[in-house]
Amino acid sequence: MADNVATKSAVVLLSGGLDSATCLAMAQSTGFTCHCLSVDYGQRHAAELTAAARVAAALGAREHRVVHLDIGQFGGSALTDPGIAVPISGLKPGIPVTYVPARNTIMLALALGWAEILGARDIFVGVNAVDYSGYPDCRPEFIRAFERLANLATKASDEGHLLTLHAPLIKLSKANIIHCGAALGIDYGLTVSCYQADAAGRACGLCDACRLRRDGFTTAGVPDPTRYTT
Amino acid sequence: MADNVATKSAVVLLSGGLDSATCLAMAQSTGFTCHCLSVDYGQRHAAELTAAARVAAALGAREHRVVHLDIGQFGGSALTDPGIAVPISGLKPGIPVTYVPARNTIMLALALGWAEILGARDIFVGVNAVDYSGYPDCRPEFIRAFERLANLATKASDEGHLLTLHAPLIKLSKANIIHCGAALGIDYGLTVSCYQADAAGRACGLCDACRLRRDGFTTAGVPDPTRYTT
Repeated sequence: MADNVATKSAVVLLSGGLDSATCLAMAQSTGFTCHCLSVDYGQRHAAELTAAARVAAALGAREHRVVHLDIGQFGGSALTDPGIAVPISGLKPGIPVTYVPARNTIMLALALGWAEILGARDIFVGVNAVDYSGYPDCRPEFIRAFERLANLATKASDEGHLLTLHAPLIKLSKANIIHCGAALGIDYGLTVSCYQADAAGRACGLCDACRLRRDGFTTAGVPDPTRYTT
Repeated sequence: MADNVATKSAVVLLSGGLDSATCLAMAQSTGFTCHCLSVDYGQRHAAELTAAARVAAALGAREHRVVHLDIGQFGGSALTDPGIAVPISGLKPGIPVTYVPARNTIMLALALGWAEILGARDIFVGVNAVDYSGYPDCRPEFIRAFERLANLATKASDEGHLLTLHAPLIKLSKANIIHCGAALGIDYGLTVSCYQADAAGRACGLCDACRLRRDGFTTAGVPDPTRYTT
């Protein structure tokens, strides 16, 4: 069984943040050969993609690819539209303006295409329904619906090679994600979660992603290696 | 009712080929204000995208956007990988090498994101399960699964604005698609279906797309305006 698992390939969506790095470490530790995919969709900064490359290398992924996608032309999110400010006054109820329409559907679709080309039957995504309960495409029912779609969408599925969509962090708190990743040896100093990190990868400390991350380290009782500008 | 329909916006996937042009004409004739989306995913030729722009303008679409997406880096299809030849010896059973892994899932995901930004609750796609029965992502069960996913994936769906995915050609033969489009006044000379059209948009006459298109015009008894090089 272990031998069989050791030969399996997986596509892992990797943003460069804390969650997807932990997800990659879990996939690696389960014995998957990991092909990491980042999507450059017009995020406000490139530090995230640099971090993704660093994390993939540090965790021993087989390869790391970046797909460029100019959905920024549609606007509609603080992460892709320079006209919408990233909120820095603390977390509010509801779906924040940093929500990117259909982002996870788009990234999973790209992962699905690559998985089929690689002959991989597993996709890993670091979505989390606890801290980001406002994001519709981070919930278990979304993940199940995508897996169902994936198994109707491809030539591979037609030939009986069913795909499994893994979302191992979906029910974990940020603190538990950090505990997990620390136990797996991740250096979280390599990751960038901030929505508006500077060119050197330093975090603002004020956006929602920074607040959730900082609180996670505090609650976990794990030293926070993040370099903050504030 | 007619007034209400007349104010509705839809995103229409437009490839520049015969099917999606007909799909756009149907959406327009139903009273939708159409926002057309083409995806430049590394197709072998640009004639298709030029045709899409021409068709959108001729049919009076509100706008036409092109998203660039470098999935050609993954290879895996004769349409994106110069190392795989487009078959020209006639249609064979099974899924052809022109199949692009997860293409419709990816394009529909992009359409979903744009629809949410526009506030549109309708997406049109010109897939067809009859002539291309080999393509898994052209079947009714795939379309239903994507619609279900879409209604779990977005902030809009969370707020009760459900999305309808229209695939009006899905059960039509090529000849009936042509009858429909001709009745709606489409000039099919504007469209390009060929997998390897030349820079001037002339069709090879030998690839599967050309054969299906030519047979469609013959069966329909409609004059074929396609410019063939052979």
